[in-house]
Amino acid sequence: MFVLGIDPGLTRCGYGCVDTGGRASRAIAAGVITTSKEHAVPHRLAELQGEIRLLIAEYRPAVVAIERVLFQHNVRTAMSVGQVSGIVMAEAIAAKAEVIEYSPNQVKQAVAGYGSASKDEMERMVQALLGIKSPLRPVDAADAVAVALCHIAHQPAGVMR
Amino acid sequence: MFVLGIDPGLTRCGYGCVDTGGRASRAIAAGVITTSKEHAVPHRLAELQGEIRLLIAEYRPAVVAIERVLFQHNVRTAMSVGQVSGIVMAEAIAAKAEVIEYSPNQVKQAVAGYGSASKDEMERMVQALLGIKSPLRPVDAADAVAVALCHIAHQPAGVMR
Repeated sequence: MFVLGIDPGLTRCGYGCVDTGGRASRAIAAGVITTSKEHAVPHRLAELQGEIRLLIAEYRPAVVAIERVLFQHNVRTAMSVGQVSGIVMAEAIAAKAEVIEYSPNQVKQAVAGYGSASKDEMERMVQALLGIKSPLRPVDAADAVAVALCHIAHQPAGVMR
Repeated sequence: MFVLGIDPGLTRCGYGCVDTGGRASRAIAAGVITTSKEHAVPHRLAELQGEIRLLIAEYRPAVVAIERVLFQHNVRTAMSVGQVSGIVMAEAIAAKAEVIEYSPNQVKQAVAGYGSASKDEMERMVQALLGIKSPLRPVDAADAVAVALCHIAHQPAGVMR
């Protein structure tokens, strides 16, 4: 079964597709969708919608796990992250995937064992959980894989295989 | 030329399509897309995406004018309004429409003449500008028509016909 993790963002939207079918979780695709700050927001959203649709059509994830937007930071960024998350959710449901949101704290808790894990610790844990020799790059892709791994960790043992 | 005004919302999303081709602006369609609070947000967003897509396919507006989300109010509501606005923008651009956002103040200023106009005054002005005998209902539809009329007011005289 494939779980697609999404770290939503308008300038950089991380994605990571994890296969839960083997003995260990395996990242089968991870990367970043970028849109140019020089274009108008509606055009960037439309471009991102197209990319997300292609991604979902290619990997056909059973679940799309999205990092939940929090509002304590920059309002303008939060707004565009909200717009992106809305688009991802609608596209996922339209493609018959299940959609689940996890807070940044839930992701850290599930992947590193505690909610205040640093970026570095998260990257090392993602690397260890995937059994890969060097940290996953770019960082947004690793963040998105962490969201997928968080979803996997939330399932009862054995249910995902 | 058709201008589709959108007052974005997840529970109630107002829309109003205004024809600028005659001597006076004429509302050719106005209404509200509703989604049930009993369903999960991703499903509601997907449902709304489908309805917006149908609306744009039916009326083929040259411009989609959207009321800009402001963040001073309820954060949870602002989040879902942001998600809806992102979906509307992406769908509009995908259908080759132009997308323009107007703040609530711009809409009031353009339609009623001043930024602190009350709901009642706005409704009466929408009614007067459309030359209709009773106020447009439901209110969300009138709000959306006001956004379309705001866009029309921002065009140089004669350009829209």
